[in-house]
This record gives sequence, C-alpha cells and structure tokens, in this order.
Amino acid sequence: MCQLLGMNANVPTDICFSFTGLSTRAEEHRDGFGVAFFEGRGLRLFVDPASARHSPVAELVKRYPIRSEHVIAHIRKATQGVVSLENTHPFVRELWGRYWVFAHNGDLKGFEPRLHGAFRPVGQTDSERAFCWLMQELAKAHADVPSTAELSVTLAELLPRVAAHGTANILLSNGQALWAHASTRLHWLQRSHPFTHTRLADEDLSVNFAELTTPSDRVVVVATEPLTHGEPWVAMARGELRVFVDGACVG
Amino acid sequence: MCQLLGMNANVPTDICFSFTGLSTRAEEHRDGFGVAFFEGRGLRLFVDPASARHSPVAELVKRYPIRSEHVIAHIRKATQGVVSLENTHPFVRELWGRYWVFAHNGDLKGFEPRLHGAFRPVGQTDSERAFCWLMQELAKAHADVPSTAELSVTLAELLPRVAAHGTANILLSNGQALWAHASTRLHWLQRSHPFTHTRLADEDLSVNFAELTTPSDRVVVVATEPLTHGEPWVAMARGELRVFVDGACVG
Repeated sequence: MCQLLGMNANVPTDICFSFTGLSTRAEEHRDGFGVAFFEGRGLRLFVDPASARHSPVAELVKRYPIRSEHVIAHIRKATQGVVSLENTHPFVRELWGRYWVFAHNGDLKGFEPRLHGAFRPVGQTDSERAFCWLMQELAKAHADVPSTAELSVTLAELLPRVAAHGTANILLSNGQALWAHASTRLHWLQRSHPFTHTRLADEDLSVNFAELTTPSDRVVVVATEPLTHGEPWVAMARGELRVFVDGACVG
Repeated sequence: MCQLLGMNANVPTDICFSFTGLSTRAEEHRDGFGVAFFEGRGLRLFVDPASARHSPVAELVKRYPIRSEHVIAHIRKATQGVVSLENTHPFVRELWGRYWVFAHNGDLKGFEPRLHGAFRPVGQTDSERAFCWLMQELAKAHADVPSTAELSVTLAELLPRVAAHGTANILLSNGQALWAHASTRLHWLQRSHPFTHTRLADEDLSVNFAELTTPSDRVVVVATEPLTHGEPWVAMARGELRVFVDGACVG
C-alpha cells in the first residue's frame, strides 16, 4: 500500500520532520516517491522513481526546509502501471489559472471514464486517469473559478463516483485548500498552540515544535498511518471527505 | 537577459557539465532558475526563485547525473512579473497526453492574446501567457496527436505571431522533439563522434566527452551564448526555427 502525506498550514511551514517519518516507511515502498510544495500560486514538484530511502532528491527534501502552506507527498508501491517517472505521484494539471495536485492510494480497477476534455493521462496508472476525470468534471461543473466551498460541494459529488470503483484514499490541493478523501486508511491531526515535543513513530527522531512555532501557528497533517506517538490522530471513516484551509478543518 | 539552455540527445545524457556552465552566468541573473528533464514521457521539473549560484536545488542538479533525452533550462533575470515561484521558467502543461515544456528569453510587451481555451497562466509573465496561447492554438490546429513534422509546420506559423510582439528566443519540447526559435540570441551545437576534450567558457572546468560516450552517441546543445571554447557553435538568425530529434537537426 502506498503512503500518503498532506500538510495544510496557516503560515509557510517546512515538512522535513514529517517527510523523514514518511520516507522511513519507504523500504517496502520502493517504487518511487513525489512531493509537491505550493508557495503561493507557484509549485515545486519533486518526483523520483527511485526509493525515497536512497534518492538524492529525497535527501534534498529532508534537508532543505522548503516552507509551504500546502504539501502533498506520496511514496509508491506499484500495483498498476510500471515503475517509471510518468507513473510517479503526485500528478499536476492546471485549471482556472491554478495548479492542481493529486495523489492517490488504492486500486481503481476497471475505472475507465470517458475522457473527452482537455485532461489526458501521460502515464498508465488508474490514479492519473481518475485525476484527469476529476479535473474534467470540475471544469464542466463550474463556468468560472468557484470558491473553496463550491468546489467542496462538487468534489463531494464526484469522489464517491471514483471510490465506487475500488479504493480511493486521495489528497487534492489547488494551493488554496487541501481535500482529503478516505476509503480505507487515512488519518489527520491538527497541531496548534501549545506546541509540544513530538517523536516520530518509526525513527529515532524528535522535534520540539514549541521552539519552532508562534502561538498563532496552526498546521494540519494528513497521513495514511499516524506518523508520531502521543498525538491525537483522527482516523477518517470510509467515504469521508475533509477540507482543510489555513491549518484548520473547515468541512 | 535570461539564459536559455536546451539539450536533445539520442541516448539519455546528463546535463551536469552544461548546467554548471550556465549557472556560472547566474550572478547577474539572480531571479530564479529552472530545469526540466524528460525521461521518456515522464518529467522532472526543478524550479527555484533563488539564484542558481546559491540554491541547494541547483547544487543537486549539478551533482546528480539525471540522464535525459530532452532538457530545457532557464536562468531568469526578471523584466516582467515579480520574482516568485509561479513566474519561474520553464513552464509545463499537458496536451494530448504529453507534457510540454516552454522557456523564453525576451520581452513580449503588449502581447495579450485572447485565452478562451483550456490553458491559463498561473503567474504574471508575458512568457507564460505566450506559452498558453501556443498550447491553445496547437490544440485547435490538430484534431488528434500530430507528428513532429506536422507540429513543426504549425509552430512555424504560430511563432512569428508571438515574435511580432517583441523578442522570442524560445525553447519548447514535448519529450519527442526540441524546438528552438530565435529572435536575437540563440546558438546551437552538435556533438558527435569523434568526441573531444572540451572546456567551459566561464569556469575552470573541462570534460573529456570521449571517455563518457560511445561512437553512436549524438547530442545537440542549444544556448543563449556558446558555453564552451573551441566547438563549432552555430548562431541562429532572427526568425529561425530549428527542430531537433535524436541529437540531430531535422528541420
């Protein structure tokens, strides 16, 4: 099973700590990884078909504190599509003058939606096909740029149609909000004042967030499995859709 | 003036040597840089609004020998649009199930094409606006995926309409071909057997390509100014469009 990691914060925050936790789990997920960082409207996307355990790109991501308000990361265990760069999540498309980033965990066997619009897959994964369909349907559903609330309503209609074909643990962001949809395994956590000393579940690494934050900082982390010990991770239910803005759950 | 660098090769080739040469010129071009590497249909895009002289991302690109058949790199000196990630070249869009990469050097003042299609700029540069217009017009001109030769005919019609608004030194690739259009300054060079010892023009660095290549290897390098001494760089004329496939000029 692939590992997903999402972050949404009210101030630009680095993901080094959580990404280190995630990549520790890469030993059994050696079919590539990717991380997308929004900085305002701009986007950095690091993808590598090599394992996050050994990739120089992953090393850069762990060490270079890129500060972002929205991050989506994915460590792949290939189930469909060969191991290659074009099949490495997250995927990116532009819609309404914003980049959209998508990562998916699970199988969607037999999901062969009709893609007649402006979005076509470059690789061979069911995930990218589902993403292209979502973009096509979003574009059709709104004549002009919708609000986050309107987008959430549309996504709440569309995502069950994807999930009907299999497992759809999904993270999606346009740099304004982070949407998380669960089928089987997805957890989220809000960190806010008072920040405490936190220890990674898989690695002998801890961080004192109290030293790195101000009292108004707020950050939401979404992950396949809880990344830390001693924090109140919330398990998402099957079919649940959450919307995160400015480090808080808004729906 | 920004610096452009393109590479097209018949076997996956790393760009470390040429990128080192390019980034040496970054001192006066400190408004960001970007490099896009195709690996088959897949794409890696490294962008950083920091100078290529000091960016950890640039350091990675110089040291990590990413082997690619098509590379487009750009070092920016901002003339339009603020210095930010979303204004950092190269830009990427998907069309016909392939990624398209675009980098531009020059001003296109007053180029405000009507963008009614599926491609909209995320940032504020005239360059990204021109790229979106090119993608829109390519999509309109061909009902289905055209050949490289057909694309070249269409681009030969479209690029002068961009260049009419100012300076259009442009590199464009879809992972199958590299197109180079010159307005003022663009040079290209083919390296093939017998390969020789080559020295960078700006840096005390040389490489013996004979040790790194096989007799059938062929690579074309396109750059704003010649990057090396003692090689037969060809200056492109105003309005000239070149098409490179498999390390050779095909049009």
